[in-house]
Amino acid sequence: MNQYIKADPWSIIEEGFSAENQRSSESLFSLGNGKMGQRANFEEQYTGKTLQGSYIAGIYYPDKTRVGWWKNGYPEYFAKVLNSPNYIGIDVVIDSHMLNLFICNVRAFRRELNMKEGYLLRTFEAELPDGKIVRVEAKRLLSIVDTECAAISYSIEAVNFSGTISLLPYIDGAVVNQDSNYDEAFWNVLRMDVHSNEATLLAQTKKLDFQVAFSMRTKVSLDGKLCEDIRPELMKKEAWVGNRMKVQVEQGQTLTIEKYIGVCSSLNYSAETLCAESLKQAKKAEEKGIEKMLTEQASAWAAKWKQSDIQIEGDVAAQQAIRFNIFQLNQTYTGEDARLNVGPKGFTGEKYGGTTYWDTEAYCIPFFLMTAPKDVTRQLLIYRYKHLERAIENAGKLGFTDGAALYPMVTINGEECHNEWEITFEEIHRNGAIAFAIHNYIRHTLDYNYLDQYGLEVLIGIARFWAQRITFSTEKKKYVMLGVTGPNEYENNVNNNWYTSRLACWCMSYANECIGIVKTNTPAAWSRIKAKVNFDEEHEPTKWRTIVENMYYPYNEELGIFLQQDGYMDKEQTLVADLPHSQRPINQHWSWDRILRSCFIKQADTLQGIYLFENEFDTDTIARHFDFYEPRTVHESSLSPCVHSILASRLGRKDKAYEMYLRTSRLDLDDYNNEVGEGCHITSMAGTWMSIVEGFGGKRVYEGRLYLNPIIPEQWQSYTFRITFRGHDIVVTTTQTHTTITQYGNGELQLSIYGKEVIINSGEELKVDNISNR
Amino acid sequence: MNQYIKADPWSIIEEGFSAENQRSSESLFSLGNGKMGQRANFEEQYTGKTLQGSYIAGIYYPDKTRVGWWKNGYPEYFAKVLNSPNYIGIDVVIDSHMLNLFICNVRAFRRELNMKEGYLLRTFEAELPDGKIVRVEAKRLLSIVDTECAAISYSIEAVNFSGTISLLPYIDGAVVNQDSNYDEAFWNVLRMDVHSNEATLLAQTKKLDFQVAFSMRTKVSLDGKLCEDIRPELMKKEAWVGNRMKVQVEQGQTLTIEKYIGVCSSLNYSAETLCAESLKQAKKAEEKGIEKMLTEQASAWAAKWKQSDIQIEGDVAAQQAIRFNIFQLNQTYTGEDARLNVGPKGFTGEKYGGTTYWDTEAYCIPFFLMTAPKDVTRQLLIYRYKHLERAIENAGKLGFTDGAALYPMVTINGEECHNEWEITFEEIHRNGAIAFAIHNYIRHTLDYNYLDQYGLEVLIGIARFWAQRITFSTEKKKYVMLGVTGPNEYENNVNNNWYTSRLACWCMSYANECIGIVKTNTPAAWSRIKAKVNFDEEHEPTKWRTIVENMYYPYNEELGIFLQQDGYMDKEQTLVADLPHSQRPINQHWSWDRILRSCFIKQADTLQGIYLFENEFDTDTIARHFDFYEPRTVHESSLSPCVHSILASRLGRKDKAYEMYLRTSRLDLDDYNNEVGEGCHITSMAGTWMSIVEGFGGKRVYEGRLYLNPIIPEQWQSYTFRITFRGHDIVVTTTQTHTTITQYGNGELQLSIYGKEVIINSGEELKVDNISNR
Repeated sequence: MNQYIKADPWSIIEEGFSAENQRSSESLFSLGNGKMGQRANFEEQYTGKTLQGSYIAGIYYPDKTRVGWWKNGYPEYFAKVLNSPNYIGIDVVIDSHMLNLFICNVRAFRRELNMKEGYLLRTFEAELPDGKIVRVEAKRLLSIVDTECAAISYSIEAVNFSGTISLLPYIDGAVVNQDSNYDEAFWNVLRMDVHSNEATLLAQTKKLDFQVAFSMRTKVSLDGKLCEDIRPELMKKEAWVGNRMKVQVEQGQTLTIEKYIGVCSSLNYSAETLCAESLKQAKKAEEKGIEKMLTEQASAWAAKWKQSDIQIEGDVAAQQAIRFNIFQLNQTYTGEDARLNVGPKGFTGEKYGGTTYWDTEAYCIPFFLMTAPKDVTRQLLIYRYKHLERAIENAGKLGFTDGAALYPMVTINGEECHNEWEITFEEIHRNGAIAFAIHNYIRHTLDYNYLDQYGLEVLIGIARFWAQRITFSTEKKKYVMLGVTGPNEYENNVNNNWYTSRLACWCMSYANECIGIVKTNTPAAWSRIKAKVNFDEEHEPTKWRTIVENMYYPYNEELGIFLQQDGYMDKEQTLVADLPHSQRPINQHWSWDRILRSCFIKQADTLQGIYLFENEFDTDTIARHFDFYEPRTVHESSLSPCVHSILASRLGRKDKAYEMYLRTSRLDLDDYNNEVGEGCHITSMAGTWMSIVEGFGGKRVYEGRLYLNPIIPEQWQSYTFRITFRGHDIVVTTTQTHTTITQYGNGELQLSIYGKEVIINSGEELKVDNISNR
Repeated sequence: MNQYIKADPWSIIEEGFSAENQRSSESLFSLGNGKMGQRANFEEQYTGKTLQGSYIAGIYYPDKTRVGWWKNGYPEYFAKVLNSPNYIGIDVVIDSHMLNLFICNVRAFRRELNMKEGYLLRTFEAELPDGKIVRVEAKRLLSIVDTECAAISYSIEAVNFSGTISLLPYIDGAVVNQDSNYDEAFWNVLRMDVHSNEATLLAQTKKLDFQVAFSMRTKVSLDGKLCEDIRPELMKKEAWVGNRMKVQVEQGQTLTIEKYIGVCSSLNYSAETLCAESLKQAKKAEEKGIEKMLTEQASAWAAKWKQSDIQIEGDVAAQQAIRFNIFQLNQTYTGEDARLNVGPKGFTGEKYGGTTYWDTEAYCIPFFLMTAPKDVTRQLLIYRYKHLERAIENAGKLGFTDGAALYPMVTINGEECHNEWEITFEEIHRNGAIAFAIHNYIRHTLDYNYLDQYGLEVLIGIARFWAQRITFSTEKKKYVMLGVTGPNEYENNVNNNWYTSRLACWCMSYANECIGIVKTNTPAAWSRIKAKVNFDEEHEPTKWRTIVENMYYPYNEELGIFLQQDGYMDKEQTLVADLPHSQRPINQHWSWDRILRSCFIKQADTLQGIYLFENEFDTDTIARHFDFYEPRTVHESSLSPCVHSILASRLGRKDKAYEMYLRTSRLDLDDYNNEVGEGCHITSMAGTWMSIVEGFGGKRVYEGRLYLNPIIPEQWQSYTFRITFRGHDIVVTTTQTHTTITQYGNGELQLSIYGKEVIINSGEELKVDNISNR
């Protein structure tokens, strides 16, 4: 843990400069707008420990994988979203000294990520080695209105001297990925243009030849008066282009440079026009000016907040945390482009390559589904539909046939591209999460049209995979699933992982159910799909049903619980409470061998399964499982605590739910796992949101009905969330005594609150007393 | 399969040149002398597909490992014995054309590895692009008498022309390992000297700074007459040094160059003297001359053959094969240097890095134990003793304490350095093989002194490891061993692998037994060891016994067999016989995922265990296991068929035993697994030898008694082997009707033949009739 962020309801704030925290802060204060993202690197030179990172969504590189000895079925490459040319850079030289916070004496350092309005502000006073003192204010935004534009305002006050200040705004194409497997550079710079107050750099990725143009326009003023007489020196170095401007500054004067950036990629433009387009964007930003951009940014964020904000009264740390999570999610994905998705680190770091995991379906989709227009989620589903052919190829590589689809664990274009054999190889449960997301989407939106157009084909491909992957044990006289890795990645290649088996069977049942729906409601669509996927109506549904009815699940009679996998009870049963603090997190202190042998659970996948299918279990059963698995879970996956928080809420265990909520919501802000410097856990942030809405709020959807069962942690005065459901917007506020529900939408909404059916008309507010124990 | 080697009892012969077979032949015709080895690369230039390979024993490089994402306990590096500077090269230019068999028209090509006398001979006629024809004879040896010397005689006859022939003998330091993980060069050349008919190159490995000096002396003659008037051009290029000699040759004349090589490494000399020493060796060879070197080589090999040869009458393919295996083993390891060991590919290729695996203990030691002076095996055991501290450190890295030792799966200096996570990581059974080898050594030699001096410490460290690695299952109320990989590498991370569990328990029992022996026989030694290893005499032996007595072994009542691991019977039970030929070997056709899920076995480790502890099982039990596991075994490990051959012999199933014998003995010669181009399977060659001696010959040692139970395949007229046992040399000849046994040694020898106790005096021959069915 590392707690240095100041509590504030709307901002992330750091006070006082610490080189040790710099990498962490670079992650935490990241900006993004769905199309690009930028770590909170400094504009001026910084020679301390840093992870320089700018990312353009969808621009990736198929890096060579690293593996000792190759085996059939291993991915050909590890795709990674690239660290792109650095467009924020402004070197500052005061007389002969380069401004560099690693070297200077830094005072009054303050950094603020203003989440309400969507900008980053940094102020500090720096004393240079020669005793000169400057006061700096740097503000920047990545516009969510003009998504190809960024702007920086950078002011330097000469506190105790008069002298020459040189400003060098630049674009630097000589960037590398720190996680490059073979220390290669991934970009070639194709073209650089430079004029007064203007530069453009065109870079192309190796192998796949994506092109991105970066343009900057700059404007320098002294004490607010434009310096029109500066003749910038036009500079070009290898893969670097910029201006150098020298200004004589008198003591007390403030020199300001505004830098307007345009970024355009070949995903959206033809290559020939890229430089012109990016310059156009930079000029557009310049004409608007940073003040207007900030105003527009604030309104645009206000709209997002209206839809997705959660207010917590009486607990500023919890309030800050949930807003941080919502802010980062909305910075990462906007649903405007079905080619994009949500990487586990979003735009805040290199790890996981910016590629798509099951996190999207299992965590992010519930968030976007209830806080954004339904098309946002639909785009995420279509992303997978577009990869169906590749998923069938992927299954084919592993030996599956006849249209069986295995979606990749890690992908950017539909091909499997993971880089971690021991865990990922058998983590086939992701296939289930993708099917479940379709179900989730439909139950929230009633958009059955999606099934006809896209979803059913995906469901059939997935069901076919499971039907082949599950085999019959003549010994057990049951169907079994051998050799899998569940979401609990601290087990590898186990037999009969309950979560995977249960989810697989659900997939086959749901595919059968959806075939029935499409057949009945839209027979023409069914005929088309049936022919397209060459469906054997006589045998396939029966086979799926037979497997579902005869599936083996490991179960312990004595404990009355499903076992995580065969043989789990053979392990030495120790509890997390007995682990010395010095050995945690175990993945940083124990050998992989020891972790695999231990009973400790990274994230409890049995509980994850119970979360998905909670309506099938009574409260006692849920409690038995929770009480068995939670004390064995080390929560070393960021995806873990939220599920435990939700189930603890379900069981009315407020303290545990709150503890887990803090852990998930402040995972990055308080750096629970000593790794935030690598980037934030963007996808698990959606789990934080779920901890409130589905956890404390007790929101569920079963059989077409919305359920709410709010409880409230004792530490809070109230909390309020807003969700969309089948065309209705529902605002729920829970205090220590009562809950009020308001709905906005077309006509009345029937829902269940604390087990009681109620009907709420549009605009109406319903107030009910809390039921303290569920 | 690829069968192109001509049958011959004493030679490996290839007739007719095929560029497709070149890499395979380079492996098969390799030379070695225990200190260095050389693939059968051509002396002259060759631009076809080739794997250039010279290896100096013990000179290795800690290559960076390749792994997607690092985990605690992974090795820091992958050690590999390096491809060393090329010292055999002699470029030949005829007028303006470079002699290059990939380009020339090649006729009458013949290559012979003369195993009886230990040299390589190659003859061919080549027509150059301009129509000139040369007839070449190239002969070379790596001396087993002067182990730092090699010699080449290379003759060129001008068949249909008169012209200029240029000879360029050289030493080339610009070599790479094709298996370098990051395409790095591993050598720096420190120094090059060149004089007339002489050159020296001193190279140093990166990181570890091993130095090796290579010197050459050359001698050129025309039609047998020394060309004393040649003034060689002295040449130095980057990392390359040589002479160029132009000779005018008339039609019909034969130009011959002799190249004498000295190779000295910093393993054996101080760095400053290396160049002088290697030149001394080259000069020594030159003075001796290649003819005398060949004569000495033949006598030295005759001595080796006397001890280790197996004669097979009536089956030349089988005869050739067994000699090939024995020859390669004796080329690879001589027992002169306890720092060396036997890599799976010996000196014939790069794969497996030339490092030490459990192959040494499980396969090579039985061979050397019975065909070489006992000190040869003792050296191999001391190699592990010297690594004991490292094995304790290695176990420590994985979380084991209190002197528990886990020997590495792959090592060159005692540290774990494997490069293949999926398989090797949990293959802890190697620890058992190392203990068993000590037992094997002692039962064959009665050298109990070894226990006092070295062995017992190793046994205690290993027993301690097992006692910690095995845990108690409160569910099974038995001890279990979770998360291991057995010798059958087509399963990964399984629970209760029978082989590993059985062997582990044996280790603990044997350690207890040996403690008793040392305590009784040499109490002073026991006191010393006890103090040194801090042995808890009160608890440790008891704990070991308790585990042994309460160990859980997976067993199937219905079939009456031990199961390879928990859950094996849950797999779809198909047989190898049902696999289409087109899908074999499955490791070249199936995904790793499919292999792991299938019931197919790379090598049957349950049978391996039964082989080790055969005396504990009656014939019916052995038969039940064999009949269950053999049909499921694909033998895609070179270590597999020999064990099946031995057990088939044990069961009197001659046809199966013979089939498996051919498979193991001609694995490389007939290239069963399409991979001999990478190198020969040196360690498994010892298994071939075991298939005859322990298989057909039925040789066993139990309770201090030697047992023989010979059977003979119908295809053979007779076979003869010679083994050493407790100071006796025993020669056994079996024909279709009877077996004769002769022993040479100190006094009489009591043994059991076909279950009958007999006593044979030294020099006496015993003749018994065969018992057709055991």
